[in-house]
Amino acid sequence: MEIAQPYLLFLGDVPDALAAKTGLGIVDWRPEWCLGQLRLPGCQADAGIADLTIDEAAARGCKTMIVGAVNAGGVLPNHWVAPIVAALHAGLDIASGLHMKLADDPEIAAAAKRTGRKLHDVRHSSERFATGKGTKRTGLRLLTVGTDCSVGKKYTALALEKAMRTRGFDADFRATGQTGVFISGRGAAIDAVVADFISGAVEWISPAAAENHWDLVEGQGSLFHPSFAGVSLGLLHGAQPDAFVVCHEPTRTRMRGVQHALPTIQQVIDLTIACGTLTNPAIRCTGIAINTEKLGEDAARAYCADVAAAHGLPATDPIRFGVDSLVDEIARIWGPK
Amino acid sequence: MEIAQPYLLFLGDVPDALAAKTGLGIVDWRPEWCLGQLRLPGCQADAGIADLTIDEAAARGCKTMIVGAVNAGGVLPNHWVAPIVAALHAGLDIASGLHMKLADDPEIAAAAKRTGRKLHDVRHSSERFATGKGTKRTGLRLLTVGTDCSVGKKYTALALEKAMRTRGFDADFRATGQTGVFISGRGAAIDAVVADFISGAVEWISPAAAENHWDLVEGQGSLFHPSFAGVSLGLLHGAQPDAFVVCHEPTRTRMRGVQHALPTIQQVIDLTIACGTLTNPAIRCTGIAINTEKLGEDAARAYCADVAAAHGLPATDPIRFGVDSLVDEIARIWGPK
Repeated sequence: MEIAQPYLLFLGDVPDALAAKTGLGIVDWRPEWCLGQLRLPGCQADAGIADLTIDEAAARGCKTMIVGAVNAGGVLPNHWVAPIVAALHAGLDIASGLHMKLADDPEIAAAAKRTGRKLHDVRHSSERFATGKGTKRTGLRLLTVGTDCSVGKKYTALALEKAMRTRGFDADFRATGQTGVFISGRGAAIDAVVADFISGAVEWISPAAAENHWDLVEGQGSLFHPSFAGVSLGLLHGAQPDAFVVCHEPTRTRMRGVQHALPTIQQVIDLTIACGTLTNPAIRCTGIAINTEKLGEDAARAYCADVAAAHGLPATDPIRFGVDSLVDEIARIWGPK
Repeated sequence: MEIAQPYLLFLGDVPDALAAKTGLGIVDWRPEWCLGQLRLPGCQADAGIADLTIDEAAARGCKTMIVGAVNAGGVLPNHWVAPIVAALHAGLDIASGLHMKLADDPEIAAAAKRTGRKLHDVRHSSERFATGKGTKRTGLRLLTVGTDCSVGKKYTALALEKAMRTRGFDADFRATGQTGVFISGRGAAIDAVVADFISGAVEWISPAAAENHWDLVEGQGSLFHPSFAGVSLGLLHGAQPDAFVVCHEPTRTRMRGVQHALPTIQQVIDLTIACGTLTNPAIRCTGIAINTEKLGEDAARAYCADVAAAHGLPATDPIRFGVDSLVDEIARIWGPK
């Protein structure tokens, strides 16, 4: 899936910022791609960018309208159809993170057909992938892995991209989840791919590159999550990372959605190396990213210091303390850029 | 997917037995379900059961016609449509292992709608699964795992079902692949499930059962196969096996379809236990199934003896030497039935 930039963000009339978090996340990481937002009367979310009509957005060169908000249930409300159809007629593609497919709405399907514009559903995979081959590709790769779901894997990969680019690295974030695809303009929601093609899809997401190019691959789930470990393993094999960063949320006691306790950081390091060796024998852990949101400042700093000392690796909260220490470790091992 | 029995096997006009191997496999394992075969002029395959017309099959009580043969390319030849439509009108459901969906043929779709009969495409998953929960279910489970794809995992599970039933065990084969679904009448092609639902699908395939009931779960792929390990891991977590049998083909030097060497049997045992512990801490290896097809009789016997001695576990070729030694080990650990 490749989504044309720049974007007009459609936020609908959602009741709060949380319902628009996909759209707000795009503005956070790709402000230069977001020319404006389209909000319907009553919308309580605000991305802090220009309010544009569809015609204004088209005139300024927007190529895609992103449906970056979700109503309760993930369905498409009837009153969102007219602006989507209008955007198609104004020459924009539409990209959506809703559970339902855009083309399942007959009016939207007909308008897309008439105007020849594209409909992207990032939760659904229409791309045909090959099965993974596991053959080593050129270029360097870092994968974020986790002790659980929703512990900061996407954020860490994006923060690394930003910090590495600032320091002169040739580095690209590679999306494997819905929001990530909007942010990178390319990728696939790996959890929506047919099971036989997980690693093959990741080989497509992170293709061969220049020797010193870094792909920062967004991780998913956890090798220790009983619902999603298959996705995580296929992603590990397909990404064949040289480096990985373990993401962890220290106050969580149960894995998301199930009764299982979290694994330790060391267990994740050990199993990631044991399995990752299959497609990259040189795989190594280069750091730990801690989501300390629920800890006070002093406790967060102490926790990171303890984890770093225990594992002999840099440990940081990417949001609170930045990722410079993680980039330092990469520069130490593979060179400054 | 639940397929009504008994079956009429449709073998088309395929040029050899290999093209009808799905149908022949059903007769091997479920002769009592196969009332007859329907062969078109020129068919070079023969399941060795009665040739029946569609009307004869319907009169004898056949509930489903199985498209148990594959033409080159897996497509549906035009001249197979008429007998399929006729079977629908005679009151039979249709189940197919072709790559293309039966309902993608407009005549078949229309006939199914008019007659109210079911179309089953075992290569496609229409079932909606929940995500896996990883919670321990009652009953005992054995999973066949492999050093590679296509090393005898389905055959071993089916042979165990047969031998255990003969010895009075309450045991059911549980299908996770296309041919297996025809043989069990229920199951799902796990490699066709959306990645997020692999372990959840297996939880559906092998539900909670009586305390001394054995599910013999058909394995897929290998934890060491770079194309399919994600499927194998989700299957392991979903099956939460008490016992597993490692299947191996000793003359193979490269894994199927890729450049990677095969893992050792011991590596498979170790990683299966390391990962399987997540959903069943009591998981253990109970034997090794060797596909000795390419070895002479003496070499095969010696190889099995060597493997058994090296691992302290029974090792046998299920086809050549039967699975009694594997059942003995199960009986020794969990009781005779």
